[in-house]
Amino acid sequence: MTPPPIFADIVKAAERIADEAVRTPLLFSPFLSERLGGRIFVKPECLQRTGSFKFRGAMNAVQALGGASLKGVVAVSSGNHAQGVAEAARIAGVPSVIVMPADAPRPKVERTRRSGARVVLYDRQREDRDAVIAKVAAAEAGAVFIHPFDNPHVIAGQGTVGLEIAADCAALELHPDLVLVPCSGGGLGAGVTLALTERFPQAAIYLVEPEGFDDYRRSLAAGAPQKNAARAGSVCDALMSPTPGAIGWAINRERVAGAVAVSDAEALAAVGLAFDELRLVAEPGGAVGLAALMALRPDVAGRTAIVLLSGGNIDDAVLAAGLSAYRAEASASAASGRIAASG
Amino acid sequence: MTPPPIFADIVKAAERIADEAVRTPLLFSPFLSERLGGRIFVKPECLQRTGSFKFRGAMNAVQALGGASLKGVVAVSSGNHAQGVAEAARIAGVPSVIVMPADAPRPKVERTRRSGARVVLYDRQREDRDAVIAKVAAAEAGAVFIHPFDNPHVIAGQGTVGLEIAADCAALELHPDLVLVPCSGGGLGAGVTLALTERFPQAAIYLVEPEGFDDYRRSLAAGAPQKNAARAGSVCDALMSPTPGAIGWAINRERVAGAVAVSDAEALAAVGLAFDELRLVAEPGGAVGLAALMALRPDVAGRTAIVLLSGGNIDDAVLAAGLSAYRAEASASAASGRIAASG
Repeated sequence: MTPPPIFADIVKAAERIADEAVRTPLLFSPFLSERLGGRIFVKPECLQRTGSFKFRGAMNAVQALGGASLKGVVAVSSGNHAQGVAEAARIAGVPSVIVMPADAPRPKVERTRRSGARVVLYDRQREDRDAVIAKVAAAEAGAVFIHPFDNPHVIAGQGTVGLEIAADCAALELHPDLVLVPCSGGGLGAGVTLALTERFPQAAIYLVEPEGFDDYRRSLAAGAPQKNAARAGSVCDALMSPTPGAIGWAINRERVAGAVAVSDAEALAAVGLAFDELRLVAEPGGAVGLAALMALRPDVAGRTAIVLLSGGNIDDAVLAAGLSAYRAEASASAASGRIAASG
Repeated sequence: MTPPPIFADIVKAAERIADEAVRTPLLFSPFLSERLGGRIFVKPECLQRTGSFKFRGAMNAVQALGGASLKGVVAVSSGNHAQGVAEAARIAGVPSVIVMPADAPRPKVERTRRSGARVVLYDRQREDRDAVIAKVAAAEAGAVFIHPFDNPHVIAGQGTVGLEIAADCAALELHPDLVLVPCSGGGLGAGVTLALTERFPQAAIYLVEPEGFDDYRRSLAAGAPQKNAARAGSVCDALMSPTPGAIGWAINRERVAGAVAVSDAEALAAVGLAFDELRLVAEPGGAVGLAALMALRPDVAGRTAIVLLSGGNIDDAVLAAGLSAYRAEASASAASGRIAASG
């Protein structure tokens, strides 16, 4: 197995991507803090180049693997890694071919093309993804394949999110007690965990998945990687990978506090909350950490919690569903006579 | 006339509001930078508590005027100052009464109420606003009136936006060449200008107004305050004050580089761009600086420009119009064969 990255790899990744990636802030949320009784901060990776954290790992991998000297890059992704790799390749000046499911959100496909990638669509239910990838890889001889999460450079790149959180916590004299990280294959979780526990070993980091795609939750419980039964069917299109990546698993199993799952309805309500209360555009898969905070109500009284909003590439119809879900919930809550905090 | 605030008042305001306001970031925009050929940063005050910069001035004024010892506060506003004052009063634990036009965006009215304010609506066309205010003020004897811009504490509070921009520029070793600031009565512009020119006297600061409400542009040209003919009718509901405030005018006339105006269509397209490319929720009045950057195309090649996105309290229908406007423009641009930068 490829050895997992170490902390120094994340520091190096941060240097590699500094000129191209957006240094995202750690945003204090008065609204969430008052609602939940703790100090709640949001790390909005929806503000990252290409609209998700995926650009970090992709850019680091493209640079680490040769940058402009590469013959080309190939990737497979439902959309956020696709955009990240396509944009990283464009910046490096090398061609990219991206394999995407035909049911990927349209803006994700369009934006991948806008970065200059050749997009190959496949049917998630009827076609064998690996066969499609093999065919593309054969046609693109000499191009390197960049896995969305089971790649040490990708994990190190995603880890720069954690490095920034750690730096901002140190500057604000905060000790993060609870950190909620959206999880698909576990690459973001692994990178963030590696970076953050170096400085804040007491931080309890939870991976958050959609219900039905809770392979990490079941894997941690079983002590070994488990698979999801379904291949599709969640509104969290970014979080449907079938099983934990091996490299990230080696990091996460040792270091995360646990994994939890939220329903599609909870993820949608979190999308609406992000829009209405935080003025941030989040996609359902990017908002599952926020959904976990609101739906599972971990005890954060007097504590510092950080929610990672990992992406914001969303269809109009899904945003509309999210706004309806959140506003219905907010009205019901107001009607029940509970005191609503403002912000 | 009340003397205008000085730089030290802004530093003091920053201390007063530090525990309650959001310290917003200076966000690098790869998308805008590549499109326009400079280094473009966005200061997203839509991420501020209550969704606009107005909370800063309101909180500073409430604290400076007595805080918890106040009998109450009264304000008049189309919505953003309303929310700012209502929320500042709630935090200080004092009652607030806010006079708002009946055609104010519904979310602005609802959120003002959510902060616990009593809202008094009036008809912008048929009723005399000053008479309504006088009546409310008489009923609320002992409450202090907080003007939306012609108040030194309010201007000092808004100036904290500029203080943060200056600190971030210094940390990033940037010299801001061009700064675009949305403008209604001129309070934000005055505060930002005062704070920013202290450290960066060469920065060219432009106020940006909606067409038809370009009182500042005409006032600067005439050398004396001018009035707008219309009272209503712009999609930029936050930017329809009739004439420059006297205190801000004394600062701005000496220090800003100029004022420009954008059309409603340009402001709407900027709302769509903010959503699609920056994943930020901006309202039309908050996006006029961005609209000026995209529509007037100032020469920023090799230079550093900062766009202030001043607010994000928007109706769903207006957002939909903004998305349509921006996407139609982007498609036309792609169809014309111009190379589209990504990001």
